[in-house]
Amino acid sequence: MITIDFAKRQGMTLTDFLYSSIKTQILDGLLKENEKLPSKRTLALHLGVSVITVQNAYSQLIDEGFIFSVEKKGFFVSDIADRLKNGRALHKTGARPAKPKPDNFFADFTSNAAVPGKFPFTLWSRTMRQILASENERLLKRTDVFGTIELRRAICRHLKEFRNMNIDESQVIIGAGTESLYSMLVLFLGRDKIFAVENPGYHKAAEIFRLNGTKCVPVKIDSSGIIVDDLQKAGASVVHVSPSHHFPTGIIMNFKRRTELLQWASLEESRYIIEDDYDSEFRFTGRPLPTLQSIDQNDRVIYINTFSKTLSPSFRISYMVLPPKLVQQFAGKLGFYSCQVSSFEQFTLAKFIEDGSYEKHINRMKNYYRSLRNNLITALENSELAKICSIHEENSGLHFLLSLKSGFDAHKIQQKWKDLSINIQLLSDYYEPPEEAGAQGESFVVNYSGINRGRVSEIVQRMSSAIQAEKM
Amino acid sequence: MITIDFAKRQGMTLTDFLYSSIKTQILDGLLKENEKLPSKRTLALHLGVSVITVQNAYSQLIDEGFIFSVEKKGFFVSDIADRLKNGRALHKTGARPAKPKPDNFFADFTSNAAVPGKFPFTLWSRTMRQILASENERLLKRTDVFGTIELRRAICRHLKEFRNMNIDESQVIIGAGTESLYSMLVLFLGRDKIFAVENPGYHKAAEIFRLNGTKCVPVKIDSSGIIVDDLQKAGASVVHVSPSHHFPTGIIMNFKRRTELLQWASLEESRYIIEDDYDSEFRFTGRPLPTLQSIDQNDRVIYINTFSKTLSPSFRISYMVLPPKLVQQFAGKLGFYSCQVSSFEQFTLAKFIEDGSYEKHINRMKNYYRSLRNNLITALENSELAKICSIHEENSGLHFLLSLKSGFDAHKIQQKWKDLSINIQLLSDYYEPPEEAGAQGESFVVNYSGINRGRVSEIVQRMSSAIQAEKM
Repeated sequence: MITIDFAKRQGMTLTDFLYSSIKTQILDGLLKENEKLPSKRTLALHLGVSVITVQNAYSQLIDEGFIFSVEKKGFFVSDIADRLKNGRALHKTGARPAKPKPDNFFADFTSNAAVPGKFPFTLWSRTMRQILASENERLLKRTDVFGTIELRRAICRHLKEFRNMNIDESQVIIGAGTESLYSMLVLFLGRDKIFAVENPGYHKAAEIFRLNGTKCVPVKIDSSGIIVDDLQKAGASVVHVSPSHHFPTGIIMNFKRRTELLQWASLEESRYIIEDDYDSEFRFTGRPLPTLQSIDQNDRVIYINTFSKTLSPSFRISYMVLPPKLVQQFAGKLGFYSCQVSSFEQFTLAKFIEDGSYEKHINRMKNYYRSLRNNLITALENSELAKICSIHEENSGLHFLLSLKSGFDAHKIQQKWKDLSINIQLLSDYYEPPEEAGAQGESFVVNYSGINRGRVSEIVQRMSSAIQAEKM
Repeated sequence: MITIDFAKRQGMTLTDFLYSSIKTQILDGLLKENEKLPSKRTLALHLGVSVITVQNAYSQLIDEGFIFSVEKKGFFVSDIADRLKNGRALHKTGARPAKPKPDNFFADFTSNAAVPGKFPFTLWSRTMRQILASENERLLKRTDVFGTIELRRAICRHLKEFRNMNIDESQVIIGAGTESLYSMLVLFLGRDKIFAVENPGYHKAAEIFRLNGTKCVPVKIDSSGIIVDDLQKAGASVVHVSPSHHFPTGIIMNFKRRTELLQWASLEESRYIIEDDYDSEFRFTGRPLPTLQSIDQNDRVIYINTFSKTLSPSFRISYMVLPPKLVQQFAGKLGFYSCQVSSFEQFTLAKFIEDGSYEKHINRMKNYYRSLRNNLITALENSELAKICSIHEENSGLHFLLSLKSGFDAHKIQQKWKDLSINIQLLSDYYEPPEEAGAQGESFVVNYSGINRGRVSEIVQRMSSAIQAEKM
């Protein structure tokens, strides 16, 4: 039976809310193609609403093609659900390729999805309403490429508080996600430069650098971080690193390596370090090392961070901090662009940070993730897997490594788990080429932020059973 | 005396609202550096609030450095206002270049600012609230580069209704402003291609194509639109045009030229037309010609439009419609990107379109602009200027051309008007190089959307008087 939480309808009519709830369930695949819907009477009784309400909602769904009725049989979900999701089939040439049906895994360790129920919708909504109610004329003006001064100031304070970084708001540039900052940096630093990325590493950065026309080379990391000698040999001018929590290995670049890297950058005028601090807010114990940005004496570090990890991936706001020396050049070269983030969201986020809501939210999420992580690790340690697995983690960030010594082929284990509806990526997938992974071959990247807390023991049970079965 | 409209504070405390209103007035330059503020008592009396309210607001402004107090003298606006706007002076090297102080012109014919008081804040806020209240999990998921299916469907319906275009939602891609679509198109079509732009034309498109690494050539237009022979000679593969209302001349590409242009595109596999339909919603009389996209038989037209003109420039949502043939290629090449627009705004805008609010808003703005435009043109025709000026317009869009035959140097007139606080751009500024303008040299681009309706006669009076004075 369809369950609808009418407590959430705030301000919508019963009909609208019912209509949109059912539509969402269809779009999300919770109601499947050809599934029979309850009769109007049954649903009305079940939900405690009038039959008219259900009838109106059903009529609208029929009008829009989400459901259809068969005389004397009832109402059914149309097969439009899937077509809508993947783009309706084209009448003419070249339909968009049919995507594989989005897998609804029991546990997806490859996803960065935000935790449902954890986003502060009400608070955000109230803040947005206050901003809009001010009808400030500046809400209607485009902002230059740097973004609104309010958000840039709020970010400065946040960085001072969380990362002890002393920066000036004029150094801050707001972007629509880190992806667009990467592109912007290629335009700014020049596509004739050689860009280096960590190997293994975050593929998307490399893809974007390449698509934007740079030569982009992978440079190996060891347990202290990127190998500076190799970076030197690669002839790179610009390097993208995540020193506070490397993806996917979780390695934290040690202080010695940080100074070596800064030293490397200082040797030539054209060298820059892009410091990607993407999940530094989620450090669970101990004091973090200072950012490269804070210890840089030579205006060589471009610091990048995002609100996608802390708020939601659907939230396209990121920022970078330029070294003071580059601010003027940046304004000269890219100053004609507009900021890509709407003023509404910039003002709302600024207020959300300034009034302390953002910090509270981070702390709440940190507690949530810490407990989720501990549950998962404890469950792994108490399982049959414990004998053959080791966990590599640094009490930081939203992922850790799980290494197995099962004697089985890692891809085979991955497939076994997938068969049990557990999706997990191999560490070797992040190497360029994968063979570079070598002995690390049997390690898995556990991106745990999106899994359901209530499923932890069942997940570990399934993972364990797959290996047991394999042994027999 | 500071005026504050407390009716607008909706939900904010009196103190917060007072604080933020004064801050805004400082940031907007309405309260100037060193200007004396009313005493707490006077302001409290004037606004009908308690002295404590004013005191708290003032304290916060002092804490944040927006105002300062001098013992026994009172409260004054800090000189921080300007520094905040342009980025505070940097302690170390390379402060951001001091921008010229934003000119508050009596009339600015170069601005695309939205009309204050015309944005439907309340309606938008309500729609956003409904969206957030639904707490739909999909609000928290990043969308792929195409954007949410809801917004893409809404755009299809809108294009069907407004432009009689029959497209499928799978062809639509949502972007954060046309600027980012231009960049995306270079990545997609290839920076090795030669891009052509109209001359005169919209400089920003050319700048972005060049910055992204293409060779970009200006191609002349005549009274029917871009000259296809010249396009052919330039060796271009991709051409950016605005056939429904050329910027800045206002020319509408005639049907014959449209078919010639499509014919040109069909001759080689690699040729594409970017059709920029940026202000087509504001056609005041007559039936518009069909878009190139609608009459294209060969999958050669990429249609682009934006919500910046119809809603507000601070609103970073644009879209493009790919020919069906390119959809699959686009997904293959750029499919790994996320959509740059937040899901919140995508869902809100989709609902805003679907429930008819967007159409109502456009109609309201169309009436407003039509009347503003008529007032301005009538005032010009009834002024002394009438004898020496002619107006070129096509009953469409938010700008028209004003040509003078004064016998004076156009730059000198421009400066005279500027001295009277009227800012207006020369048509020749949009030519590459400006000398190409030739006989058109004394034409001005009248971008009237942002001017104050109540000032029209005074504006024309000033424009006229400048020329009269010159004659003496």
